[in-house]
Amino acid sequence: MDVETRLEKLGLVLPEPMQLPPGVELPFAWVRVRGNRAYVSGHGPLNPDGSLCGPFGKVGTEVSSEVSPEEGYEAARGCALSVLASLKRELGDLDRVTAWLVVHGLVNAASDLGGSAGVVNGFSDLILALYGPEAGTHARTAPGVATLPLNHAVFVAAEVKIAA
Amino acid sequence: MDVETRLEKLGLVLPEPMQLPPGVELPFAWVRVRGNRAYVSGHGPLNPDGSLCGPFGKVGTEVSSEVSPEEGYEAARGCALSVLASLKRELGDLDRVTAWLVVHGLVNAASDLGGSAGVVNGFSDLILALYGPEAGTHARTAPGVATLPLNHAVFVAAEVKIAA
Amino acid sequence: MDVETRLEKLGLVLPEPMQLPPGVELPFAWVRVRGNRAYVSGHGPLNPDGSLCGPFGKVGTEVSSEVSPEEGYEAARGCALSVLASLKRELGDLDRVTAWLVVHGLVNAASDLGGSAGVVNGFSDLILALYGPEAGTHARTAPGVATLPLNHAVFVAAEVKIAA
Repeated sequence: MDVETRLEKLGLVLPEPMQLPPGVELPFAWVRVRGNRAYVSGHGPLNPDGSLCGPFGKVGTEVSSEVSPEEGYEAARGCALSVLASLKRELGDLDRVTAWLVVHGLVNAASDLGGSAGVVNGFSDLILALYGPEAGTHARTAPGVATLPLNHAVFVAAEVKIAA
Repeated sequence: MDVETRLEKLGLVLPEPMQLPPGVELPFAWVRVRGNRAYVSGHGPLNPDGSLCGPFGKVGTEVSSEVSPEEGYEAARGCALSVLASLKRELGDLDRVTAWLVVHGLVNAASDLGGSAGVVNGFSDLILALYGPEAGTHARTAPGVATLPLNHAVFVAAEVKIAA
Repeated sequence: MDVETRLEKLGLVLPEPMQLPPGVELPFAWVRVRGNRAYVSGHGPLNPDGSLCGPFGKVGTEVSSEVSPEEGYEAARGCALSVLASLKRELGDLDRVTAWLVVHGLVNAASDLGGSAGVVNGFSDLILALYGPEAGTHARTAPGVATLPLNHAVFVAAEVKIAA
């Protein structure tokens, strides 16, 4: 397995550390490691330079929704890149992730969004493409929530198993 | 402990694997096992043949709510059967679950539902009846969420300890 | 480390066990321990005698919101005291918590609340003040949810590492 080579082949770039908007404080860690587990905080998508890239607002199919389910899928894929960037900074090497365990996809959902699972597939599909079925498979929750930090459209948290 | 005998005595039947509605993809596992832990994805209730049985829509007491809290309680009980069916397929024997650790009940909530905990009790009560207080006790969260995949009324995820 | 001395210096008091409102049942544990992990259920703030203290209702900046973000921050701080009280009852000594791993802050959010992370900081800031950066740092999720049990404004769950 060489996750970073696969990322490169897909033309994907991991973003720099998140640039915090003014007044925002983060009294927590993006990744918390103990023993053979890494706990990953909720991440939204970022531009390559670490600035917030959106999309922002509610995902749905109503006229009033700011984000379509297709854009939500892309946002969830962006969350995967943010999560991988944090894991690389913490672990040094993405191949140290030996098994994805559980993924919590949170979708900022308009009232009609019965398809939050399809949105979070943007995260799961990329992790499976990068890690393969043995290491990449994971349990998952994918509820639609009322709001998300910074008005993000999608946020993803996770727990993974790591090698020493 | 013999969980399957107890299920039978209660007249309960574990459903077949979920029949996916057209266009729905599941790039994740219902149960993910590593070491002595099994991580269980969010499950909704199913008919014995694995088809979706609902209830669908929002749980609450408002006139506009599609599902009453009592129906929500029954749905959460149905989620327990779906979760147990997945665990049995993955582990072979439900007695391999030696301790329930944490349960995440997610209720598709109308704005007036302050009683989401009572809804999720449908899950907890059945698990305790089947596993007893020593193995069945668990920590729990039970928020009301904005939407759920496939417009389910209740979804439950969990983490359990398993024997080799 | 001596967490209880620090609590005392800050003038903070851990609440008595929660007094259940009539008709409310809790078929789950506030804290579930297995091996070197303690799983902590969702906790709201309590008065010192264990009665519910609120705040109740939705956190936001709209005129119709019942709870301001600043009051939400204080409520999250109160959740930390409830969680610590449950951990002390289960573990005997708060210094047995050797590492906070992941915190799930759930905010009963009005539709305009993009700042749920700031609300949950009330929990994280206190845990860091009490445990210091080495043991107190944690991964975190902080979504706004549609409703919470008992109409609480803020609820916090967690997973921590414990010493034997």
